[in-house]
Amino acid sequence: MSGKFITFEGTDGAGKTTILNMVLKHLEATMKDNLVTSREPGGNPIAESIRQVILDRNNVDMDPKTEALLYAAARRQNIVETVKPALENNKLVICDRYLDSSIAYQGGGRNIGEKAINDMNQFATDGFLPDLTIYFNLPVEDGLKRIAQNRDENDIDRLDVETIDFHHRVHDAYQRLMKEYPDRIYAVDARQSIDDVYEDVMKILQPYVNEFKD
Amino acid sequence: MSGKFITFEGTDGAGKTTILNMVLKHLEATMKDNLVTSREPGGNPIAESIRQVILDRNNVDMDPKTEALLYAAARRQNIVETVKPALENNKLVICDRYLDSSIAYQGGGRNIGEKAINDMNQFATDGFLPDLTIYFNLPVEDGLKRIAQNRDENDIDRLDVETIDFHHRVHDAYQRLMKEYPDRIYAVDARQSIDDVYEDVMKILQPYVNEFKD
Ligand SMILES: Nc1ncnc2c1ncn2[C@@H]1O[C@H](COP(=O)(O)OP(=O)(O)OP(=O)(O)O)[C@@H](O)[C@H]1O
Ligand SMILES: Nc1ncnc2c1ncn2[C@@H]1O[C@H](COP(=O)(O)OP(=O)(O)OP(=O)(O)O)[C@@H](O)[C@H]1O
Ligand SMILES: [Mg+2]
Ligand SMILES: [Mg+2]
Repeated sequence: MSGKFITFEGTDGAGKTTILNMVLKHLEATMKDNLVTSREPGGNPIAESIRQVILDRNNVDMDPKTEALLYAAARRQNIVETVKPALENNKLVICDRYLDSSIAYQGGGRNIGEKAINDMNQFATDGFLPDLTIYFNLPVEDGLKRIAQNRDENDIDRLDVETIDFHHRVHDAYQRLMKEYPDRIYAVDARQSIDDVYEDVMKILQPYVNEFKD
Repeated sequence: MSGKFITFEGTDGAGKTTILNMVLKHLEATMKDNLVTSREPGGNPIAESIRQVILDRNNVDMDPKTEALLYAAARRQNIVETVKPALENNKLVICDRYLDSSIAYQGGGRNIGEKAINDMNQFATDGFLPDLTIYFNLPVEDGLKRIAQNRDENDIDRLDVETIDFHHRVHDAYQRLMKEYPDRIYAVDARQSIDDVYEDVMKILQPYVNEFKD
């Protein structure tokens, strides 16, 4: 495998999807199909059908470990069906969320424990980690404010209905991951304007863009 | 928890569902709602929606580990939502398939390895095992013959389309489980007529029936 695997991480509303779409738009022309993007949970029909089960608003009784196993299942399928084949074809793959999200949300947020989630995910990932992770670092309150402002009432999924404590546990787990993987995880200050965050992200991506441009 | 948890196990077509229905019919009157039955994957709305993803004939590209994680997710939800609450209410719970099926089918059949499947399922089950398992012991060929005879073409799911080698690996894994858990797993000779298998199963269940009859 000589492609590269990059993930975007961070708490809700930190700007991952917004910036990923801008990156995609900007690089489409120069990188052509050397750039592959994906998202978690999802990215292929099987993972998307798992996504439906996870996000279904009716599934209020879902146990936290059930949820963690479903994320791991979707992750596995995305690795095998999308990410690895692209890497084998020398693509640059950028994925909106990956394993760190499970460690932060299910391990920290849902209190299952970061080690338990990491261990279980070894089964799902065979230890496969990103070459680079961009962490959108944002105080919890700012993220929630952004989401609330842009909220369409019909668009709330099961995971949005969480306590502020939950979001703080997620945030704290991300801070620990940053310390644990200083070589892999690059933080950007996501409090900045969208354009400034975008500029920071593009600086980090530049070496990869040079390597993979068509 | 003072209820009891019993599972039915065995290769395809061994008669688990047939006999469970007979047991249910026979005991319904005497045990009233002291008897709770369930099935894997499934048993509640979330697990049933996971079942749909697993058995969907279109999901031919499903990776074996994705499948194993989905079974574990459905199992987790069934334990938390159905089995444990029933046991806490002193019920006798009989479940059509449980963890041994994953060890045999995903561990043995799909070659993921019995230990890897068992380890991953510790996360899902917290080590929770049945009080008793009835193993419907049947040569692979007999099971396949039974299924073929009763086959409705539209009723074939993704898992039926397996090689004979697959079914032998499943069978062999079950034989190893029998040796590993001689105190938990009771084998019945599933080559017998339905009535004779039923009689054997009822003998094994008799002490539980006495304990839980209304
Ligand atoms: N730097 C920024 N400043 C102000 N608003 C922003 C900024 N980045 C994103 N937003 C806005 O915040 C909202 C959430 O952004 P986005 O969906 O990209 O976050 P996300 O990290 O993908 O969140 P989630 O984890 O929930 O998917 C959007 O309405 C977006 O326009
Ligand atoms: N002892 C038996 N002798 C002959 N036929 C049997 C016997 N037990 C079950 N059958 C028949 O074999 C077929 C499969 O039985 P059943 O569905 O109960 O198996 P199962 O163990 O539940 O299989 P699966 O694992 O695929 O759900 C049915 O058509 C059933 O009537
Ligand atoms: Mg997003
Ligand atoms: Mg059956």
